Order: sequence, then C-alpha cells, then structure tokens
Amino acid sequence: WGRRQQVNAAASIQHCHAWMERLGWIANFDSVARGTTADRAARGWQFADSEIYKLLEAIAWQLGHAPTPELEDLYDDLVTRVVAAQDDDGYLNTRFGHAGQRPRYGDLEEGHELYCTGHLLQAAVARVRTRGEDALVTAARRAADQVCAEFGPSGRAGLCGHPEIETALAELGRALDEPRYLEQAALFVERRGHGTLRPIPLLSSAYFQDDVPLREAHTWSGHAVRALYLAAGAVDVASERGDTELLDAVARQWDAVVARRTYLTGGMGSRHQDEGFGEDFELPADRAYCETCAGVGAVMVSWRLYLQTGDVKYADLVERVLFNVVAVSPRADGRAFFYSNPLHQRSAGSDVEADAENPRAEGGVRAPWFDVSCCPTNVARTLASWQSYAVAVEPGGVTLLQYAAGEVDVELEQGRLRLQVDTSYPDDSTVTVTVLETPPAAGALRVRVPRWSDTATLGRPGASPHPVEPGIAVALPTMGAGDTVTLTLPLTPRLTWPDPRIDAVRGTVAVEVGPLVHCLESLELPTDLALDDVQVDATAGPRSAVDGHGVEVRLLGPAHGGPSDSAHPMPYLPTPPPPVTDDAERADWVRLTPYHRWAERGPTAMRVFLPVRPTT
Amino acid sequence: WGRRQQVNAAASIQHCHAWMERLGWIANFDSVARGTTADRAARGWQFADSEIYKLLEAIAWQLGHAPTPELEDLYDDLVTRVVAAQDDDGYLNTRFGHAGQRPRYGDLEEGHELYCTGHLLQAAVARVRTRGEDALVTAARRAADQVCAEFGPSGRAGLCGHPEIETALAELGRALDEPRYLEQAALFVERRGHGTLRPIPLLSSAYFQDDVPLREAHTWSGHAVRALYLAAGAVDVASERGDTELLDAVARQWDAVVARRTYLTGGMGSRHQDEGFGEDFELPADRAYCETCAGVGAVMVSWRLYLQTGDVKYADLVERVLFNVVAVSPRADGRAFFYSNPLHQRSAGSDVEADAENPRAEGGVRAPWFDVSCCPTNVARTLASWQSYAVAVEPGGVTLLQYAAGEVDVELEQGRLRLQVDTSYPDDSTVTVTVLETPPAAGALRVRVPRWSDTATLGRPGASPHPVEPGIAVALPTMGAGDTVTLTLPLTPRLTWPDPRIDAVRGTVAVEVGPLVHCLESLELPTDLALDDVQVDATAGPRSAVDGHGVEVRLLGPAHGGPSDSAHPMPYLPTPPPPVTDDAERADWVRLTPYHRWAERGPTAMRVFLPVRPTT
Repeated sequence: WGRRQQVNAAASIQHCHAWMERLGWIANFDSVARGTTADRAARGWQFADSEIYKLLEAIAWQLGHAPTPELEDLYDDLVTRVVAAQDDDGYLNTRFGHAGQRPRYGDLEEGHELYCTGHLLQAAVARVRTRGEDALVTAARRAADQVCAEFGPSGRAGLCGHPEIETALAELGRALDEPRYLEQAALFVERRGHGTLRPIPLLSSAYFQDDVPLREAHTWSGHAVRALYLAAGAVDVASERGDTELLDAVARQWDAVVARRTYLTGGMGSRHQDEGFGEDFELPADRAYCETCAGVGAVMVSWRLYLQTGDVKYADLVERVLFNVVAVSPRADGRAFFYSNPLHQRSAGSDVEADAENPRAEGGVRAPWFDVSCCPTNVARTLASWQSYAVAVEPGGVTLLQYAAGEVDVELEQGRLRLQVDTSYPDDSTVTVTVLETPPAAGALRVRVPRWSDTATLGRPGASPHPVEPGIAVALPTMGAGDTVTLTLPLTPRLTWPDPRIDAVRGTVAVEVGPLVHCLESLELPTDLALDDVQVDATAGPRSAVDGHGVEVRLLGPAHGGPSDSAHPMPYLPTPPPPVTDDAERADWVRLTPYHRWAERGPTAMRVFLPVRPTT
Repeated sequence: WGRRQQVNAAASIQHCHAWMERLGWIANFDSVARGTTADRAARGWQFADSEIYKLLEAIAWQLGHAPTPELEDLYDDLVTRVVAAQDDDGYLNTRFGHAGQRPRYGDLEEGHELYCTGHLLQAAVARVRTRGEDALVTAARRAADQVCAEFGPSGRAGLCGHPEIETALAELGRALDEPRYLEQAALFVERRGHGTLRPIPLLSSAYFQDDVPLREAHTWSGHAVRALYLAAGAVDVASERGDTELLDAVARQWDAVVARRTYLTGGMGSRHQDEGFGEDFELPADRAYCETCAGVGAVMVSWRLYLQTGDVKYADLVERVLFNVVAVSPRADGRAFFYSNPLHQRSAGSDVEADAENPRAEGGVRAPWFDVSCCPTNVARTLASWQSYAVAVEPGGVTLLQYAAGEVDVELEQGRLRLQVDTSYPDDSTVTVTVLETPPAAGALRVRVPRWSDTATLGRPGASPHPVEPGIAVALPTMGAGDTVTLTLPLTPRLTWPDPRIDAVRGTVAVEVGPLVHCLESLELPTDLALDDVQVDATAGPRSAVDGHGVEVRLLGPAHGGPSDSAHPMPYLPTPPPPVTDDAERADWVRLTPYHRWAERGPTAMRVFLPVRPTT
C-alpha cells in the first residue's frame, strides 16, 4: 500500500488535475468568479465540481503524511480558485444560480448540487484532520451553513438525488464540533424514503433510495454508490446521536447485502442499467458492475460499522474490497483506471482511447479518463487516506486491522505511541510489529486475523509461535518499548465454492491466496484452448507454481460437446453435455493472476470462477 | 392461434387505441392538421407516431381476414386523422418540422423520424395486400417519395438511428411495384456501418449498428430490435436484387446469433442497459431482456430467410419465438402485456399499476401500457398477420409451416386451393389436413416436422402411419379434393440441456413439451421450499401429471447448505456445497407451467432452467 500511495501522489493526483484542467472543469470555478457564466457554458457533467473536491481531499490527506512542495502549491492554487467562486451567502456551485444558469436547487433529482457540496465538506474534513482550519475549511463551513439555512427544519423539505451530503455534514460537524451540521445530516437521512423525488424516466424511486425509509429497509437496492454513501451517513448520524435503531438497521442491511448481493471480490452492484444492486443471488460474473466507487462506498460503511461495533467481519470486508476492488482500478503507473470491475471478461477488449474521455470502458482495458469520471478521484482520495483504515485506537489498547510496512504514530490519551510494522504482506505471510515508543499503560496490541486464515500463528522472539483463531487476537497483552511480535498468516492457495443459489457461477470454483482473489487470463492458456472451454480439476487443487511465481490449477480438456451444427442450431441439446475426460495429454497446469493485476499485460479474456467437472 | 387472433381483434386493438387516445398520441396528428403545434407540445416519446401506424397495420391485417364494422370504422377514422397531418410535400411526422418544433430530420440519431415513416409504410403494405389502394396507401406513397427525394443518391447521406425504413421501403416497393423504393432501401442498408451517426452518450455506434457494415458483420450486436429490423430489410434488399453476398452475410449472422446469443425461448437481447445483444454465451436467465419486439423482429428475419432458402431451421425458430416470446406477452384478456420476457423471476413482483403508464415492468406482472409502449402494438400486428407465416406457396406445391385450426385459402397460378386444418396443437399431437378444393396439378402438400419431434408420423385413412424425420415432409405427393392426411407429433415431455458454455445456466435442465418451453412457478411449490432452493431429479425425467393436466418433475431437497452465518458472512465457502440427499419424504413431484402462460395466476417467482443434482 505504501507503493500505491507513492504512485497515487506522484502520478494519479497530477493525472487527474491535468485532465480536469484540460477539460475545463476547473475553469468552471474561474468562470463563476469572473461572472462570465452567461458567456461560457459549464464544462462536463453536472457533478464535475465534485471531482475537484475529491482531488482536493486526496491532496489534503497526502499532505498530512507525505507533503511535497509541488502538492502544497497545487492544493493552494486549487483552493484559491474554488473559494473565489463562492457566493456571498456561502452557496458554491459552478452550474446553478448564476447568470445564464438554472436557479439554485433547481433540479434536486439530477442536479447533484448537495452531492457536490458534500464532497467540498469532505475535502475540508481531510484538511481539518491533517492541518487545521484554512480557506477551504472556511468555505466549507460557509457552504454548510447555507445548506442548513436552505434545507433546515424551517427551510425547504428537499433532498439530493445522490446521497453524500449526509456523511459529509456529519463528518464536518464532528471535525468542527458543530452540532447543527449533524442535525442537518439527520434530517436528510430521515427525509429520504418517502417518494419526495420525482423518479427519473425509466427508473424508479429505488434508484435513489427514496422508496423506503432507511430505518425500515431490509437490504440495499438501487444505485449502489448512492445506497452505500447514504448508509455511511446514517451510521455517522446513528453513532453521534446514540440511535441504536438506525445503527441496527444499517447493520442488518450490511448483513443481508454481504450474504446475498456481494461478489467474491467484495464488489457490489450487479447491474449496468442503473449501476445498481441486483436481487438476492443475482451476481453475474460477466456483467458484474462492481463500480470502483461502490468499493469506496463499501469501505466507508464497513469502517464506520467496525468502529461502532468492533466486529471483525467489517474489517475483513474492508481488506477484501481494498485489495480486490479499489486496488484493481488504477494501472500500475497510476494513469489509467477501471470504472467497473467484472469477474469475467468474455472477450479481450480494445475499446479504450489512450488520450480521450472514454465511456465506461467495459472491454478490460483501463482508461485514462471517463466521460463520467468519478472513479479516478475516488481512488485517489481512498489511497491517500489508506492509513485511516489500518489502525484503531480502542479502549484498552490499539488494534492493527490492515497490514503494510511503515510506522504507526498515534497520540493516545496517555502519550505518544509508535509502532514499526515490517512486512511485504500479502506477498509474504509474516507481519512483524515492534514497539518503538509507548507511554505507560498504553494497553494491549491487538491484531486482526483474517477470516480466511485458519492456520495463523503469533510468535515472540525466543518463544515458539502459538496458533490463533480468526478474529481479533491479542499480540501483546501490554506494550513495552522494544517488544516485538510476529503474526504469520500462511498463504496457502485455497479453493472457494460459491453458494449454489448464485446461478451465474454454479458448478465453478475460485482460487484465493491470502486476501487476493485470483483469476485465469486467456493469455496464459495453451493456444488451442479458448477460455470459454476451460474446465479445471478441482480434485487436484491449486498449487504453487513450479517456478515459484504464483499459483496454478490443473486444466482438463474442453468442456463443451463441439460447436452447434445444422442438426442443433441452438445451444440447447437433448442430452447432457458429455463428461470431460481426464486426458493426460491435455492436462496442463496453468498459472493464475491476482485479480487486482489482471489486464496489466494487455487485453485478455479473464474469469475468476472456473468451471469444474461435476462431482457426486 | 385463432383464439389469440380473436382476443387481439376484440380486445387488444381497442385497448391500444383507447390508451393512445387517452394519452394524446393520436391527437398529435390533429394538432399538426390544425396548425396548433406551437401551442401544444406533442405527447409521448418521439416515436409515438409509430404506435398509431403499427395499430393501423394490425387493423388492416385483421380486416383482411375477419372484418367487423367496428374495425372498419376505427380504421377509417384513424386514417382520416393521420392523412390530415401530412405536409404538402409528403412529409408526415407530428413532432418535427412544424411551428414550435425542431426542423425536419433534425435529430437522425434519436428522432426516429424515418423509423416512424417506415411503420406508416408497413401499415400501407398490409392494406395493399388485403384490400388495395386507399387514402393511407396514397399517403404512404407520398411519404416514401419524400424520403427518396430527401435521402436519395443526390440527397443528404443520412440514416435513421432506428432501422425500420429499410424493410418498409422494400416491402412497399414490392407491393406497389415501385423500384425506386427498393433502391432507396438498398442505399440505407449500404450507408449504415460507417460511423455516420453521432453516438448517444454512454452508448457506442454498435448500439444502432453503425459500427460495421452489415455485409461484413459476423454477428448481431447492439440494440436487438434495431439489429433485427435492419437484417430483415437487408434480406428484402438482397432477395429483390439477387445480392447473394448480402443474403449470405445475414444468414451467417443468423447462424451465429442462434448458436450463441439466443435463449431457449427464441428470445434475443441479454442486456437491459442498451436493450441489446450480449456477447456470445452471455445469456443470463434472470436478466434476459428478450424484448417482445425483438421476438417480432426475429420472426421477420427468420421468415424472410426461410422464403429465400427453404431451410426449415428458420421456420422452426419462427415457431419457437411465436409460442415462447410473442405469445408470452399478452395477458389472456389481451389488455396487458409483458415488455421483457426473462426466463427467471427471482421474486414475485407487484410493480405494475393497473391504470397507468408503466416503466418496463420487470416484476413479472403484465402491464396495461408502458411509458415506451412499443410492444402492445407490435404484438397486435403480429397476431393479426399470423396466417402469413403459416403457409408457403413454393415450386411444386404448398408447405404448411405453422399449425392451427382453420382454413387455408390461396390463389395459386393454377387456381384456387382450399385446405381444412383440424388440430388443437400444441395441446394435442395431431394435425389433420383435408383438401377441400384444388386446381389441377397443384402439386404436393408438404408439412414441417419440427426439429424436436423425433417420433413424428404421417398417416392416411386406411393406411398405417409411417415415421417421418424432422424437416419438410411430403404429406401428399399430389393434392386431390377430399384427400386427408394426419401429421402426428407426439408431445412427450423432454429434458433439454444447455451448452456448458452458457455460464448462467450451468448445471440445470429445462423441460419442453412439443414447441412449448415450460417453467416452474413458485406458487406450485410446497410452502417450505423456496424457488432459490429447488433442485430437481433429472434421472427421474419429466412425466405427465397424475391428474392428466400438464407435466411434472421430481423435486429433491433444498440445494443449499443453509443460510450464511457469522462464520461465513459471504456466500462463498471453503468446501463444496453438500450434495442434496434424495430424501423420500421430501421428494414431491411438482407441476410445471407452459412458459407462455406464466404469471397468469398472479405474481410468482419463476424459473425455466431447473438446477439438477450433479451427475458423473
């Protein structure tokens, strides 16, 4: 993750900035500041402002732990241009309410005004948490005040088609100790679900979660990112107000979605049509939408639920999503991204233009920028704040939840605590933690043992390691300077079987190694075997590759009974498909790819779930 | 089919008329005629005109074989109102080119102007074929002339985002013996596929088949109805011009699509997002779009290919689609319709408003009308012209291709031929044909033996029946008045296995009886068994129900290993799902429903493909 943060800071942030400058999205702010909106139509979609705010949030987090002069300058320049566009009463949006534009809050369903404001507030939260008040924070405060005045208890009873303002107001209220913002967030959460918003043509109220109050919903449906952002805001509200009913509702929804509407990668969103959740067990691998931004949303909700409950299952999902949804998106150089993250690519794609805005590239090639380009900046802000999800300070000690090499440096009530973490997880199985500095009575060091790890051990120097169960394990009952402990999470490749109710992957198996879902890329196959025809030998299990690099599975012969012919022009036959014979000539072993690295070697077909020979 | 035609004439046609009057779609024509378009915005979508034309086509066909005074009056009234809206130069469209409207042909990508004109022409063709020239035909002729003048070889090189004008011009040219129309159709076919149309946001040129010239395409992709209408027009053009290269291209595309992109029902279109074809073997049962209109398009293309080639596979598909796509749509009373026709409904729906325009109802309830309401009128015109697909006059005789009770009455070159067909197929297995009247040397009577029927026989009175192979069989080598022959197509229930490359239905089996795909409705299940958990015993096969009504399969116990728990919050497990034990207590037999009748008894979950216990 350290390397990913470096690439993010050194490449992705500049890349996003350059594209938004090129496309005139940042100049939209200049246009408002100069009063030239009547002559210049705002560029990009109606939510383009939010991309600048998400970029500012990414820079703010990055400056908090690894500042550079270039990033400082970029931050200052962007803040100056953004702040200059703020109206006198605090309203800040580049495409509503000025000369030649629609009136403020003139399209709550699709205008994304409060959504954009929400991202402004989250950028300010990142700044408060890392540096303190500045011009951006002041602007956010004024914008939040304007929202409260406009939509408060005595204002208009409106809400935004795209949730985001809820969690943003709650976070800003917490960061600035301003209870009015939290009250406004609660109001937005409660107002939703009563059919206030006019449905968008061909979609229903469920698309923006305005069909059922969140408090009463059993699961999440509609647009996945919207549902997840709303749920995150609801947990914020519930935790600040001690509203256990609301907290329980979201926790129940999380259980339902993770049990029946979530992909093996942790990806959410089964449908392209509305970028939405499907029904229970509607989890097609090929048409998995699994938007990168929904991964960000899933991390946001799960992290908040972990903090409220301490239940390790939430931190387990955070790890799964970070490795298998968020990390999949950026190319190794940080200058191209996946928008959707299917688990099966039927044909090797080539639908991306290297120097253009792309539609939501679906051909298995990462694109430099998108027409709707929400994902690149969302990845940037998530990677820049990765450390926020790694450690929790809890009563009686500190818990390490995610693993990467680096130094933990936190100010506890009792004083400063510094931990050194040495690991190359998940490429290596050991995580060694050394206490560099600790105040007295800092309590225990606890570590998360992932659910998949049933042979984990904890060891101190000079003592033999002892097994630990999945969950939260005490690594050091009390922390003392110089103490060292090693968590070992053996990375034995393992098979994972889908619930038979998931029709789309019945009769298949997946391979996982540690936290990494793996996949089979067609470019690894013998030239005479198409990915469509692959069947693997589950009884042989996966094995470490003979050359020591990666994991292999054993291939059986083609799985189908030959192409359609004139007697059977359709792919439906009067007899069962012939069993695949285990032909020793045919039986090759084939190398798998960690899913987050797929398509790095060029266009390829790919599948995570591998058909197996039926067994009794 | 006779009963369906009666319901169509007595209910559906009036139903469609009443809805379009209520919504002001027909009044759009009055508005143009009165010159009041500046004061009254046209109602409905930009393709609303086409619905009136499709209704007129349905009425014209119906008047051809079963006229009633009410339908005559309705036809005359609609024609009067439509014709009154025609401009002096022949242009006829209610939402372009008049006061307060966009200019003519101002939005070829999405405006649907030529598409609407095409349906006007097809309505006129129905009239020419059944009655001859009238005011509608004259209007169509003038409209076609205007199109030729505007888009001809020396006119603008445009084309319509939605194909339809191609087949319409070719049909009208054939019906009126006007080669200019055919030339214009050919021009539109050749012009397509060169990226002329500006892509619609978030879609690509493939959406409207403007990415690859039809002549070079290997398969169909993009919006299914558009692809099928275009292919139908191409066959028309190819056959009139003797263009075997173009004909071969469409035939090759048909083979590819039927082998890899077609559902068991004959339904086409795997994706909701663009109402489009998916990739090869991307055939999810639950998200099958299988738009009713795509069924109409598949019949149009297949019928044209049959007439050009005489290959029975095309007529087999026509039967499959008519019974399992087109016939599924209308409710038994003809006053509600399915828009999409999935093969798996996960949860019983209730998303339809009984007296409102509905979005594309996806919850398994037929809706009275839709926001985009292309399907009801398309069903109406197809049912009203069903007889067109039933009989082919070919060199050396006549071929019966589809079976229903009634009288065949055709004028051959040699004179009048009348056949009596007695059957209640597909409820009964026998089709008896009696020659009522025949001219001398009328040739042979041939009958189609469907591909699924491997025990068919032909029998004459007083002789023992002899087996016939699937294909076209000679029933009577020469027809003589009074001759009788009986085709027997035993309706033994049979299992059908999907190609293993169709991931979405791996490990399942379907049940068919004659031409009818069957399905399992949840309302047939024991109350303690959810449709998600069903597994059937394929080794026991399907059987006729004990009470003589319908077909049953044997249920095994629940197929899953129990709900997710805290140890496994996700539906992915470290061990294979436990095999279903054959519990004699549990083993019920359950009745299936012919797919075209599903959801007739109220909202229900449903699946066509039934999971089976894996066998070695």
